[in-house]
Amino acid sequence: MKPGIRSLRIAQVAPLFESCPPQLYGGTERIVSYLTEELVKEGHQVTLFASGDSITEARLIPCVKTAIRLNPAIKIECIYSMLMFEKVLQMEDQFDIIHFHTDFLSFGLFRHLASKCITTIHGRCDIEDLPLVYAEYKDMKIVSISDNQRIPLLGIANFYATVYHGIPPLRFSLTPFNGGYLAFLGRISPEKRPDRAIEIAQKAGIKLRIAAKVDKADQEYYDREIKPMIDGNPLVEFIGEINQEQKSDFLGNAIALAFPIDWPEPFGIVMIEAMSCGTPVIAYPHGSVREVIDDGISGILVESIEEAVAAVPRAAAMDRRLVRKTFDDRFSVPNMAKNYIQLYEKMLHAKKLEDSTKTSTLIEQILSAADGGALPMSAINSAIKQQAA
Amino acid sequence: MKPGIRSLRIAQVAPLFESCPPQLYGGTERIVSYLTEELVKEGHQVTLFASGDSITEARLIPCVKTAIRLNPAIKIECIYSMLMFEKVLQMEDQFDIIHFHTDFLSFGLFRHLASKCITTIHGRCDIEDLPLVYAEYKDMKIVSISDNQRIPLLGIANFYATVYHGIPPLRFSLTPFNGGYLAFLGRISPEKRPDRAIEIAQKAGIKLRIAAKVDKADQEYYDREIKPMIDGNPLVEFIGEINQEQKSDFLGNAIALAFPIDWPEPFGIVMIEAMSCGTPVIAYPHGSVREVIDDGISGILVESIEEAVAAVPRAAAMDRRLVRKTFDDRFSVPNMAKNYIQLYEKMLHAKKLEDSTKTSTLIEQILSAADGGALPMSAINSAIKQQAA
Repeated sequence: MKPGIRSLRIAQVAPLFESCPPQLYGGTERIVSYLTEELVKEGHQVTLFASGDSITEARLIPCVKTAIRLNPAIKIECIYSMLMFEKVLQMEDQFDIIHFHTDFLSFGLFRHLASKCITTIHGRCDIEDLPLVYAEYKDMKIVSISDNQRIPLLGIANFYATVYHGIPPLRFSLTPFNGGYLAFLGRISPEKRPDRAIEIAQKAGIKLRIAAKVDKADQEYYDREIKPMIDGNPLVEFIGEINQEQKSDFLGNAIALAFPIDWPEPFGIVMIEAMSCGTPVIAYPHGSVREVIDDGISGILVESIEEAVAAVPRAAAMDRRLVRKTFDDRFSVPNMAKNYIQLYEKMLHAKKLEDSTKTSTLIEQILSAADGGALPMSAINSAIKQQAA
Repeated sequence: MKPGIRSLRIAQVAPLFESCPPQLYGGTERIVSYLTEELVKEGHQVTLFASGDSITEARLIPCVKTAIRLNPAIKIECIYSMLMFEKVLQMEDQFDIIHFHTDFLSFGLFRHLASKCITTIHGRCDIEDLPLVYAEYKDMKIVSISDNQRIPLLGIANFYATVYHGIPPLRFSLTPFNGGYLAFLGRISPEKRPDRAIEIAQKAGIKLRIAAKVDKADQEYYDREIKPMIDGNPLVEFIGEINQEQKSDFLGNAIALAFPIDWPEPFGIVMIEAMSCGTPVIAYPHGSVREVIDDGISGILVESIEEAVAAVPRAAAMDRRLVRKTFDDRFSVPNMAKNYIQLYEKMLHAKKLEDSTKTSTLIEQILSAADGGALPMSAINSAIKQQAA
């Protein structure tokens, strides 16, 4: 524990689809894991509610034996989240702060504890059904992972802060020289626009390497749109899925990460992974991109294929140490943890004020009800209800 | 209101997948609708939480504009149940009884109101994940729709009663003579064993008429196993889906309903539909069958194809008025409603006793905490917690 910092009792509540950290994909569980381990390192008492195959220095409360996505025996997935929330609720007095990463699912059960609850929304917010639920639970505090992510729920959800994701500073290291190609990393899907990446490489006369998985849902798109652009194309190499070790070389040796997306990306972890290798990002400015990329410093924002083509030599000439420095300054895990701790402290301060007001009101009400001698159930209930309101 | 009966304030909470009553399929929503309308008829103050396209004489609280299954715009279905439960919770003091038909989904949010909550489980209970959730929420009272349905959760869930389903007495009428065929009605699926029904008809040398839908999930099974048994078979007629009006003729004119199932049927509404036409049921004794069918009176239980074949002439000779009478005595909607009302009254009686004990304990605790002059939040909280326990 650093001097002058008090240790907080923090619950981190993860989704149960992947373990923390995930064995394969799972952006949310990876971030929860980074945050959890960093909070432990900083001396906080952290309890992680997650799948039983998670690995952590925190106290682990296993809420399903193994990650749900890897367990075909599980038929009714929601049971496990429901039981997890119940466990959190039963232990709630052990925590100063309860930090959910499970969308809106906890809201109903934790409404009466709203002051010490915070929920980071990891996904996109532009789904038509969402405003209804965030409007109902306006008392539940939300963290967005970019300001842009908020837009569809602006004025509806109770946004408390934006905290950008971080990855560990030692995960990737600065690769000082590039290996002369553009990198495309992620899923093959229409909104990621691998077709644009291919077109950019083609017109720039430079090699593109694509490291991507093709989900079942996207197989048809790949076969119809992308495969024909790759087959027999000497400039494009499709290398399939890569693991975490391969990522470092793949991203680090690239001139730039091609990120020509066409959807409201809530954050885009791959951008900061590239930056942490010193590799700039050539990106279309959708979703979070303007917030994550410092144009001209850690990447180049483009609005057309032509601008992207023109950006390639500029990216090659960029100062890779400065790209890495931008990552260190803004997107490392200690940064993310620091931002969350500030948030937790702000919540605790607000809660303290609120509690003291509520307590005195409640005492007054109960004592005034008790004045007449009788203390009917209805009086107690209404006092409690008013306290909860 | 019948004399001597008091009017209860009852919430019926339906699933939102279909309207109440459903436009097409939807056994659960149909039963909720029957129960709701009957309770209104008997003079109770009923509030129905259901989809907005429901039709009811009760007060309707619409929780989604139209039934979810018919609304492709809805992406996150659980939001609507969640918001429905929130609405019920906010109105809870308007109800003496809250009757859920939504499996375990309400348990977390309504645990503190367990004494006035009851949940009818409409589906099968032999899914591996279920014991976990029913063990956790042992305080939530469950109604099974047959005793057999309980078996996988026996000693785990808090079964309070079995209430058999009912259908309106005027929905179908006694068809005094049969039209010389066996009827198979329902979904084409392996566990319903249409293959057995065909074999029985074949060996009995009698016509089988199949009125059934083929779901997407069962198309392969139909094409591979059933279609070849039907094609060119002069004894088997496949007439596809039929509507409610056609059902009366289809069931009423049959010698017997063939019900050669191979799964733990929780109830089997089609059996009582047949009975209400005076048509006996030739059934394999799985799941609820032994409870629903009075062997030799409203149907014949068989354990093999041979026994089923032998049962056909016996069924043809059965007293169809007696079959109908068995329905009237046991499976009409007024019967079902009467059973539920008895249950509600029993709950209210238990709750009254419980409340009076809890109130005096709570008063003692709070007054003893107030004795010292100060009434700290922790004392109030612990008193409230103990009350909830």
